[in-house]
Amino acid sequence: MLRVRAQVVPANRAKIAVTTGRRSFGASAARREQHLVILGSGWGGYELLRKVDKKRWNVTIVSPNNYFNFTPLLASCAVGTLEFRSAVEPVRRYTPQVHAYQAWCDSIDFKHKTLTCMPATPPLPYPSRGGETPKPDPGTSATLQVAPGNRGTQQYELKYDKLVIAVGAYNRTFFIPGVKEHAHFLKDIRDARAIRARILECFEQANQPTITDDDRRKLLHFCIVGGGPTGVEFAAELHDLLHAEIKQSYPSLARMAKISLYDVAPRILGSFDVGLQDWATKKFTREGINILTQHHVDRVESGKMYVKEQGEVHFGLLVWSTGLAPNPLVQNLTEAEKDPKTASILTDEHLNVLMKDTGAPNPDVWAIGDAAIIKGNPLPATAQGELPSPAQYLRKKLNRLVRDRAAPEPFAFHNAGSLAYLGDWQAVYDRSHAESGPKTMETGRVAWLLWRSAYFTMTLSLKNKAVMRRFMNWIFGRDLSRF
Amino acid sequence: MLRVRAQVVPANRAKIAVTTGRRSFGASAARREQHLVILGSGWGGYELLRKVDKKRWNVTIVSPNNYFNFTPLLASCAVGTLEFRSAVEPVRRYTPQVHAYQAWCDSIDFKHKTLTCMPATPPLPYPSRGGETPKPDPGTSATLQVAPGNRGTQQYELKYDKLVIAVGAYNRTFFIPGVKEHAHFLKDIRDARAIRARILECFEQANQPTITDDDRRKLLHFCIVGGGPTGVEFAAELHDLLHAEIKQSYPSLARMAKISLYDVAPRILGSFDVGLQDWATKKFTREGINILTQHHVDRVESGKMYVKEQGEVHFGLLVWSTGLAPNPLVQNLTEAEKDPKTASILTDEHLNVLMKDTGAPNPDVWAIGDAAIIKGNPLPATAQGELPSPAQYLRKKLNRLVRDRAAPEPFAFHNAGSLAYLGDWQAVYDRSHAESGPKTMETGRVAWLLWRSAYFTMTLSLKNKAVMRRFMNWIFGRDLSRF
Repeated sequence: MLRVRAQVVPANRAKIAVTTGRRSFGASAARREQHLVILGSGWGGYELLRKVDKKRWNVTIVSPNNYFNFTPLLASCAVGTLEFRSAVEPVRRYTPQVHAYQAWCDSIDFKHKTLTCMPATPPLPYPSRGGETPKPDPGTSATLQVAPGNRGTQQYELKYDKLVIAVGAYNRTFFIPGVKEHAHFLKDIRDARAIRARILECFEQANQPTITDDDRRKLLHFCIVGGGPTGVEFAAELHDLLHAEIKQSYPSLARMAKISLYDVAPRILGSFDVGLQDWATKKFTREGINILTQHHVDRVESGKMYVKEQGEVHFGLLVWSTGLAPNPLVQNLTEAEKDPKTASILTDEHLNVLMKDTGAPNPDVWAIGDAAIIKGNPLPATAQGELPSPAQYLRKKLNRLVRDRAAPEPFAFHNAGSLAYLGDWQAVYDRSHAESGPKTMETGRVAWLLWRSAYFTMTLSLKNKAVMRRFMNWIFGRDLSRF
Repeated sequence: MLRVRAQVVPANRAKIAVTTGRRSFGASAARREQHLVILGSGWGGYELLRKVDKKRWNVTIVSPNNYFNFTPLLASCAVGTLEFRSAVEPVRRYTPQVHAYQAWCDSIDFKHKTLTCMPATPPLPYPSRGGETPKPDPGTSATLQVAPGNRGTQQYELKYDKLVIAVGAYNRTFFIPGVKEHAHFLKDIRDARAIRARILECFEQANQPTITDDDRRKLLHFCIVGGGPTGVEFAAELHDLLHAEIKQSYPSLARMAKISLYDVAPRILGSFDVGLQDWATKKFTREGINILTQHHVDRVESGKMYVKEQGEVHFGLLVWSTGLAPNPLVQNLTEAEKDPKTASILTDEHLNVLMKDTGAPNPDVWAIGDAAIIKGNPLPATAQGELPSPAQYLRKKLNRLVRDRAAPEPFAFHNAGSLAYLGDWQAVYDRSHAESGPKTMETGRVAWLLWRSAYFTMTLSLKNKAVMRRFMNWIFGRDLSRF
């Protein structure tokens, strides 16, 4: 990989590019004058990208990833039940009709409707030869400019007519020292791959003849901090792996392996009905998964952490999933109203961002997903399979807008219930708070089917892929190659 | 990932382990007294592992990888035509019946029948607590000892009764500066993944609006050094990718992409019939692949190389495949006879290693694959699908040996011809030197079918996987996600 200094893009050269950019898409601009910029390729951004009217909107998506993560499947990928590819969808599926930049949006100028972006790709390894002017993607929906103060950087600006902020959130670490350095998160396909590689590495390490059984137990201690759906689903998937392929291939080591699930709260799956919490807790306890609620991690080091209630705890792998922290971009949006508790962007019921100065909604800017909260009506924490998502609502709204039709009714939030996979083809499905349909609770295999179907209804192409791949995994079993 | 200092294994503690080790597998030892150690999990080692009589031999495989690379498919994986998983087979498929250590063999003591090994897994991140003694894999076929001079290292020794050296070879760089640092090899699945990620990164980089067309052409210049089957197959697969998925997703950039194939020789596919060389050359030229024979690379830097005949040449990706260099272990084997030209281990016609001092074959040690050459009868460079491979011969021999049956006839080498994929479902198949069957030459689609079938006949489970995965790729297309 090439990792070298940033190239120099003199402002004057980039300025010329503006004109080039403008000229270059005259034809398409006539047909698609309105520039819709989507920030982020997660659930919200990707869903919108798929469904928004790309014939009428001139769409640009800006995201540090050029793919969409099918997050509910990451836990399965991390243990090799599903292949990595079955959990991602390339943004490029929609180019060139849509313009895509793999970049971070650093700041938004709401007044001038301008975004400042920084490429998420490495800079050139050699100085760019002068003379020629940089050209934006032909027919790009965004007017390229170079930020005033950015001589000598790769930074660039994009203009928008309408903007959707769907940048998601980061992992919450509570600023506990060592977490970022020594723990694995489970938000991205890269995380899943790193976790999978590490699980298998732990067993190969423990298999070395020079290792004592004492050290083997330390290496094969798999710790998960965070008893929410992600942590619980990963614990379940890991347990499945340890008692299937791993048990076959490393029988003597499999007996030394242990899974510990930590949470500061008194119970796991806090967002679920108490009955389901009990059911899940009993199931895990029966399976020998260590549930350590009301435990507090003080510090993490390489291969060990310090727990207030236990002291030094050694681990081979530590997966950290204690909720969401605000995205850096969202933190920088001082002009937007924020939720005091989560620091997320506040929107009205039409998902328009509420501006701090006026307190009024910004007619050209919407925010969805983990980065946003509808004022007085928080979004659910877990993915909701069945209801029209904010992204789907916004797509409808935008497609009406571009046709100059009346906007739809305010976004009505229907809780479709919460789902979590508990391994061994079992799950819990909590509809007790559901606002539509029967207020039921499901456990076991029925819930698992609901769990899967709920996710599968979200995106068809992923459904096909996941189903087929899962089918193949049933045939071939999980792959224990470590690379 | 944990990467810290090596743990301390005091010799005395490890010595005790010997006894522990011995005691721990009394039962199995009675049934399987003879310890067969296989070095390497490549074509030779893995083939042997699959087929050798594991009920009669007490088998241990030592390899830095815990998987087998289906090398002929790596070029396809590197462009996303096949998924990575379809090109690997886990060694763990055969554990615990077989003992596997993910380690390098540093040296062989032929006199004491002892191997010195170094774990290929990271050391413990914390000092191992004293008191307890390290235990080898229960029932391990090898007697664990700690090398005299290895206090404070992880190094350990394994004893063998019979040994098969199948460690393969490294990549040849002709000591050209910068190759190891800035070029990609294509020998391992990790290489394939790095190449694939880099190809897509090049397009995302070139897509940034701050990049000039001049720099885009540099970024999208894909150079391959080495006109052998690997280089040619990769060039062909890359061309397929550029003119299919890439063209759809990055139309304006695809036009700027260029493939250049370098070789010092006057023609590509040197090992093939001249007629086929011409056919391949014409096909590539027609497709716009730059064939630069009789060109010499002097030096490689980040993003550019210096070619004697051209001067400075910029590239986004450089794939290096100029043949094989001897494996470090093989270099250290001063007691074995070596081929003066390739520095490979020399064996007799029974594949027994020829010892330097006596000039006689070592009855307990065999060598196969890229690391070995049968004296006066060199092995083929490219994978041979149809003939009984040395590994297959050796398996037969070992299975007779363990039954105290007569050894088979000396290994008779049948050239089954050479195959190379040229993209677009076409290939060349040279049987003009074949010693069995019709002395024919095939080009085009017929040859492609032969090419695939030849590889597929090698290992059935891989055949199934590859076919099914390829089928899925036909449905879903290549995946352009970069992660």
